[in-house]
Amino acid sequence: MKTLTPEQKRFLLSTIRDVPDFPKPGIIFKDITTLLNNAEAFTLLMDHLEARYKEYDLDFIAGIESRGFIFGAALASRLGIGFVPVRKKGKLPYTTVSEKYSLEYGFDEIEIHIDAFRGSGKRVLLIDDLIATGGTAEAAAKLIKKVNEELVEACFIINLKFLEGEKRLSPHTKIYSVLEIA
Amino acid sequence: MKTLTPEQKRFLLSTIRDVPDFPKPGIIFKDITTLLNNAEAFTLLMDHLEARYKEYDLDFIAGIESRGFIFGAALASRLGIGFVPVRKKGKLPYTTVSEKYSLEYGFDEIEIHIDAFRGSGKRVLLIDDLIATGGTAEAAAKLIKKVNEELVEACFIINLKFLEGEKRLSPHTKIYSVLEIA
Repeated sequence: MKTLTPEQKRFLLSTIRDVPDFPKPGIIFKDITTLLNNAEAFTLLMDHLEARYKEYDLDFIAGIESRGFIFGAALASRLGIGFVPVRKKGKLPYTTVSEKYSLEYGFDEIEIHIDAFRGSGKRVLLIDDLIATGGTAEAAAKLIKKVNEELVEACFIINLKFLEGEKRLSPHTKIYSVLEIA
Repeated sequence: MKTLTPEQKRFLLSTIRDVPDFPKPGIIFKDITTLLNNAEAFTLLMDHLEARYKEYDLDFIAGIESRGFIFGAALASRLGIGFVPVRKKGKLPYTTVSEKYSLEYGFDEIEIHIDAFRGSGKRVLLIDDLIATGGTAEAAAKLIKKVNEELVEACFIINLKFLEGEKRLSPHTKIYSVLEIA
């Protein structure tokens, strides 16, 4: 189904576990492992993503380490296309392009292989489990454009709307979120 | 296809890139990103895994962080079953069970959620991209048995036979490797 009903969205949201004070006090962590180990929920979600993106004529799915690997690889395999990992600095073995992004305190850095898309101008979808402030996603979008020029869309399973990550990411790409938390 | 021909195995092996001196001098790293971004190779591999495991009547695929997430989630989604991540210490938000294992110098530790399989005695397949000395896989096998008792098989895309990881893992589970490097 290309569009999920409100009832289907409520079901998916009900399978996501809130874990208070993780990774630090005051944060309520959205635990998607309880969606992943629910075969009905995981299948509904992936059926939806497959139905939506099979009409996009994509060449690659790029997933952000490490929960983006889960949804990205599952979707790429269903669509019969290639998967590209965007990783934390130092994890990819071949020549990389990297991008720093700001955290609450300090910086972090992610990388992509310079030949990740076997050429340039390919139709790429970026995917991650969640968009919060959008820093990691913005860095990943910049990386994909550096090595490939084109980025068709960025897809998130959960959008924490109150953190306004879309503002940061929307100058770089179109955005689709399956579930939104106000 | 439940069994790959020698020609299909040679093709898959040809898509894996050798990167010398990564992560440190003297090591030749098996880079599977060049298999993943080759749609023909990734599809052939996943078609094979799906054909093999659809007859196993599995309940869950457990994947080891983070390259095991890629193959594990893709396979779980194709089989319509749940996916369970086995992660580095400190990454899983809920109550975990953990297992230490030895490295060349020192120790590392991996974890699984205590309720990862929504009960016990489920039919679980463990998957990772590569088995070398088998330390991580052995720890993951022990964790699955701690929280679930049963482990049907452990599956690896690449087995570095000369490191004899099977010796360490075989007391805990059956083992299947798609590609072997002598």
